[in-house]
Amino acid sequence: DIVAALDTPGSLQGRSVLVTAGPTREPIDAVRFIANRSSGRMGFAVAGAAAAAGATVTLIAGPSEQPTPPGVQRIDVETATEMHAATLERAGDVELFIAAAAVADYRVAQPADHKVRKSDAPPTLSLVRNPDIVGDVAALPTAPFTVGFAAETHDVIDHARAKLTAKGLDMIAANRVGEGLGFEVSDNALDVLWAGGHQRLGPMAKDRLAAALIELIGAHCHAER
Amino acid sequence: DIVAALDTPGSLQGRSVLVTAGPTREPIDAVRFIANRSSGRMGFAVAGAAAAAGATVTLIAGPSEQPTPPGVQRIDVETATEMHAATLERAGDVELFIAAAAVADYRVAQPADHKVRKSDAPPTLSLVRNPDIVGDVAALPTAPFTVGFAAETHDVIDHARAKLTAKGLDMIAANRVGEGLGFEVSDNALDVLWAGGHQRLGPMAKDRLAAALIELIGAHCHAER
Repeated sequence: DIVAALDTPGSLQGRSVLVTAGPTREPIDAVRFIANRSSGRMGFAVAGAAAAAGATVTLIAGPSEQPTPPGVQRIDVETATEMHAATLERAGDVELFIAAAAVADYRVAQPADHKVRKSDAPPTLSLVRNPDIVGDVAALPTAPFTVGFAAETHDVIDHARAKLTAKGLDMIAANRVGEGLGFEVSDNALDVLWAGGHQRLGPMAKDRLAAALIELIGAHCHAER
Repeated sequence: DIVAALDTPGSLQGRSVLVTAGPTREPIDAVRFIANRSSGRMGFAVAGAAAAAGATVTLIAGPSEQPTPPGVQRIDVETATEMHAATLERAGDVELFIAAAAVADYRVAQPADHKVRKSDAPPTLSLVRNPDIVGDVAALPTAPFTVGFAAETHDVIDHARAKLTAKGLDMIAANRVGEGLGFEVSDNALDVLWAGGHQRLGPMAKDRLAAALIELIGAHCHAER
C-alpha cells in the first residue's frame, strides 16, 4: 500500500518481526569455544528500534552482555545450530526477519564433553560448515521479508551485492569491520542494498543507525508486500 | 617471622602481589578467536582480597567484564602470549604471584590478519602450545611465592598435586568445573594444596572464598619466607 507507506514510511506498527543478534559460540570442549568479536550491540539496537516502531519483536540472541530492549521477547541461544533451530521454528510465522547475528560459519566437528587435558589435546581442530540461517529463511515457501547483514573488511559493496543475490534476500545491510568501525565499537556505518537500489547510513551511533535502518526497512517492506 | 604470622595470619600488609585473571583469547583471524568460559570473577576477587589485606596489587587481566577492584593496578591483555610477557616482566620484582587466569593452552599456529571468507576458510585449525606462565614464573631465579590454579572436571586432587610438583609451585588452588561450580557461576569451592598439606575452602561466594584463600596464602607466605 504505497499511500500508507508514504504516510508512515518508518512505521512497523502491528508487524511481527524476528531478529537475530550477537555472536554464536561453538564448543571445543567443556570449557573452550570458538567465538567472534560481535558485542550484539547492533542487533539488540535493531530489535529495540523495531519495537519502538510498533512491531511485535522476538529477538534470538547469542551470548551477549547487552540488556534486552523494552518490549522485546528474548530467546537465548549459544551455538549456530541452536540459533538456526530457534529461528526456523518461528520464521514462517513473521512478516519480517532481520539477521543481525554474527553467526559462526564453522563449528568443531567433534567437540569433547569433558575438558581436554593439555597432554591429550589435539594439535588440529577439524571444522564443519554451520547451517546458513538467513539463506534457509529466505528459501522458505512462506519466507518473510528477509534482511541480511554482511560484515566485510574490503570490497564491501561487491561482496554484499553478491550475498544479496546468492541467498535470495530482500535487503542486505553491509558494514565494514576494522578501522575503528564494526565489532566492539559504538559507532558504525551501513551500506544498505536491495535489488533496485543502495543507500548509505551513518557513520553514527548504533542506536541512531538502527532506527534509520528500521525506517528504511519499513518503507521497503510496506512497498513490496 | 612465625610470631608475626600468628599475630596477623591473613595480612599481606606491605607485600607486593601480582595476580593474573580472566580468560585469554587466541585469534583465528580478524574477527574470530578461541576463548574459554572463565568470567574472571575469581581472579578479580583474589586481587581485590589481596589489596584489602594490605598488599600492593597488580592485576594482569584477560578480556573480562569485571570491574577493577579498589586499589588494584590493572593491565589488560588479550592473548596468552601477551599475558606471559606482561607477567614475566614483573614477576621477578614481587613477593607473591597468584596465577588465577584461565590461560589458553594452545593458540592458532597461523592466524589471518583479515577476516577469512567462508569460501576460503580452512577445514582445520592447526594449534601450537602456548607458553606456561606459572611454570616459567616458578622457575625464575628470583621466583616469588607462586600460587597456581587448576580447573579440573575429575580426579581434582590427584591432578592438582601432580601440577604442584611438576611446575615447582608453592601452592595450588584446585577447583572442580562443571556441576554448577567453577566457570560462569558465583559460588565455588577450592582444594588448596601445598607440599605439606591440604585445606578445603567453600563452597561459598567467590568474594568470601577469595578472602579465605588470601588468608591461607598469607599465612604460608609469611611462614616460608
